[in-house]
Amino acid sequence: MVVLDYDKALQNDENFQSMLASTVQYSGHLRNVIESGVYIAAESSIVLPTDEALLEKVQALAEHYKSPALRYHVVIGIGGSNLGTKAIYDALYGYADVLESARMPKILFAETTSPDWLQMFGRLAQTLESPEQIIVSVISKSGGTSETLANFEIIVQTLAAHFGETAAILPRVVAITDEDSALWEQAGALGLQRLPLQLPVGGRYSVLSAVGLFPLATIGCDIVALRRGAAEMRTLCVSDDTSENLAAQSATVLAHYHSKAAVINDNFFFNPQLESLGKWYRQLMGESVGKQDSLSGETVHAGITPTVSLGSTDLHSVGQLYLGGPKDKITTFVYTQKHGDVAVPAASDRVLPELVPIISGKKASDIMQAIFDGTRLAYANAALPSMTVMLDTIDEYNLGAYLQFKMNEMMYLGQLMNVNSFDQPNVELYKIETKRILTGTNS
Amino acid sequence: MVVLDYDKALQNDENFQSMLASTVQYSGHLRNVIESGVYIAAESSIVLPTDEALLEKVQALAEHYKSPALRYHVVIGIGGSNLGTKAIYDALYGYADVLESARMPKILFAETTSPDWLQMFGRLAQTLESPEQIIVSVISKSGGTSETLANFEIIVQTLAAHFGETAAILPRVVAITDEDSALWEQAGALGLQRLPLQLPVGGRYSVLSAVGLFPLATIGCDIVALRRGAAEMRTLCVSDDTSENLAAQSATVLAHYHSKAAVINDNFFFNPQLESLGKWYRQLMGESVGKQDSLSGETVHAGITPTVSLGSTDLHSVGQLYLGGPKDKITTFVYTQKHGDVAVPAASDRVLPELVPIISGKKASDIMQAIFDGTRLAYANAALPSMTVMLDTIDEYNLGAYLQFKMNEMMYLGQLMNVNSFDQPNVELYKIETKRILTGTNS
Repeated sequence: MVVLDYDKALQNDENFQSMLASTVQYSGHLRNVIESGVYIAAESSIVLPTDEALLEKVQALAEHYKSPALRYHVVIGIGGSNLGTKAIYDALYGYADVLESARMPKILFAETTSPDWLQMFGRLAQTLESPEQIIVSVISKSGGTSETLANFEIIVQTLAAHFGETAAILPRVVAITDEDSALWEQAGALGLQRLPLQLPVGGRYSVLSAVGLFPLATIGCDIVALRRGAAEMRTLCVSDDTSENLAAQSATVLAHYHSKAAVINDNFFFNPQLESLGKWYRQLMGESVGKQDSLSGETVHAGITPTVSLGSTDLHSVGQLYLGGPKDKITTFVYTQKHGDVAVPAASDRVLPELVPIISGKKASDIMQAIFDGTRLAYANAALPSMTVMLDTIDEYNLGAYLQFKMNEMMYLGQLMNVNSFDQPNVELYKIETKRILTGTNS
Repeated sequence: MVVLDYDKALQNDENFQSMLASTVQYSGHLRNVIESGVYIAAESSIVLPTDEALLEKVQALAEHYKSPALRYHVVIGIGGSNLGTKAIYDALYGYADVLESARMPKILFAETTSPDWLQMFGRLAQTLESPEQIIVSVISKSGGTSETLANFEIIVQTLAAHFGETAAILPRVVAITDEDSALWEQAGALGLQRLPLQLPVGGRYSVLSAVGLFPLATIGCDIVALRRGAAEMRTLCVSDDTSENLAAQSATVLAHYHSKAAVINDNFFFNPQLESLGKWYRQLMGESVGKQDSLSGETVHAGITPTVSLGSTDLHSVGQLYLGGPKDKITTFVYTQKHGDVAVPAASDRVLPELVPIISGKKASDIMQAIFDGTRLAYANAALPSMTVMLDTIDEYNLGAYLQFKMNEMMYLGQLMNVNSFDQPNVELYKIETKRILTGTNS
């Protein structure tokens, strides 16, 4: 399971304790949302881990597509439509896809509309022998995301050209979108397979909906364990007992240090395969508490800027800045020690035994643990605030628990920072300008 | 070539103009370093682009290893020993290696000591048919980087086991390190190929030394064009004429907005293959101006936190935070419009023509250009400070120019912020603690 460790000195800090205690009023609301079992409240993403009808629907469609022939599941989506899926895929498989070119199936992510990526995909498509080797999911909550639809049309055209007709590829296409969207309707008219999204669940809270579950299920990921991890973590993270509520604790640590000038939350992962998990969290925090207006309507320009660092790589990059530079960060360390292992040869078997003799015969995981512990000690010595999240291991169960922990954390943090954790009104600003340019109606 | 565009309103700002004018005294020093042609000054990385002896040495060794049989060049190094190489490799080839599994040779980067990565590499090694298919570069300026040496010993042991004896793989190993390091000496005693580094050139300024040039040359990258781009940009970036000195301009923009509470420099790349270039810059800025002490010895905890964003992907992630949240950032947009192209089918050929009809028949690059311009307009409307770097295209020449521009920028920025751009004293803090743990001498 996932464990949170934070500075015990805060237990004697009255402000911190009263802030932590204040989360209890919201916990009751979250429990009510779970008990209702319906998708009405803004918080209703927390219903997903135990939505059995959703699981059945996803599993049935995944079974329909699963095949030993499957090579690629192309996920066309951006932001909340792919970051959660990519977080889990990369942690379990994708992080080093280049080392495992023969391992299939793979998920390919079409995010922004990159001409270069699309051209390379075009060449890859030439290697496909039958439509059964590919699935294309087009994922857009609103159904109107320009980059996603541009990618979709180009990718479908590429595959149709390769297989000789559009009719050959359409049975391999799945649309995942809100049931009231134009995409839902048009996809239905075209006879495409569809999976619905739950209207109040925003993209950044949608990883445990069909958005994440369907692509992951088709490539063999254990989505039942993913949901079980989330469901068990959810129980802790809506508890009135703040001593077991990781989400309330973590949100309070963030709000506490934010009130003391920490404007950046660095998420420092010591397993490199978790980088995409960090990028998922970057959207979750960035969009949830980065707000122009407060809940009471005042202009506040609130927010904490989330960053992602990788240990030990970034100790050799931004470590100098973190240890010597401005004290404007609250750091969340994330690590699991349990992973595959290898060891440095004993001194007598080394090629260059006189260099850093201390590593001779040491397990790689023990070297990493020492660096991890050494880094946390250096932070403590420099009076840099941090907390630590330990994952038991990197598997579906623990990743599900981590995702749910962080989504609940963000709900509490919005309350503590007095902003709406569920909307993203300012994103429209660049879309309006972009549309003006594309239509040639520049102001 | 590379062009910089920044807010022309600053041309009427007296503080900005006097700060920009003050860079001239340092430009003279930089020109002296170039003219000297030797590696003595802290700034002597700027000698590299025109060091012909270096080029000859690198090209000769690269020729020795180049072969149609070559499949993998394993670069073992961390921080300044691989980030520049990865920046160029990913921009030109690696960004979508997963789409081009058959394209060889590839560079594989062994950074931190990841047991999972090393196990996967072990399985990949089983597929090699002869030592001529692989080159292993072990890169460490000091020669004593724990992660690098641990990776090196494990990787060499893996390859030796696969090929039956250590003697089979040692001719495929190249050590790149300072000539006074223990690695240089030990590698020599073992008869390994070696390439020397220039003592005063720190890791983050070393991309145009053998660190970057050698691996890139072996896989067919045009390092002559890379150096030419750097050399031509260098001429501009040591000029007393501040109207053509991009580095002085950009450093002054950063220092100006930093003095007005911009604590974060977001580097927002609209070509996704430039993400690793952003990570290279992250070290360059983080280590260069993230400093506990000023040049005059006062404790200042100076620094700007560099972040990397990707357009349009991150508009759907942290765009809300950037447009609505705290005004604590100066943004550097980076883009090139010239790259491979594809187009969305005309409406009559689209599968779902009624969705976002505006994209029908549009070129992908025109859609991206509209999003890029729309984003910059939205930033301007929200009074968010930014500057824009336009690359003519993404090739060796322009990447070389960009790298040199940014390294010179950082030298000027250190002057403007009154810190030493060339050291990294605080990095030792975690290393000391790590060593204590590994030796069991915890304090």
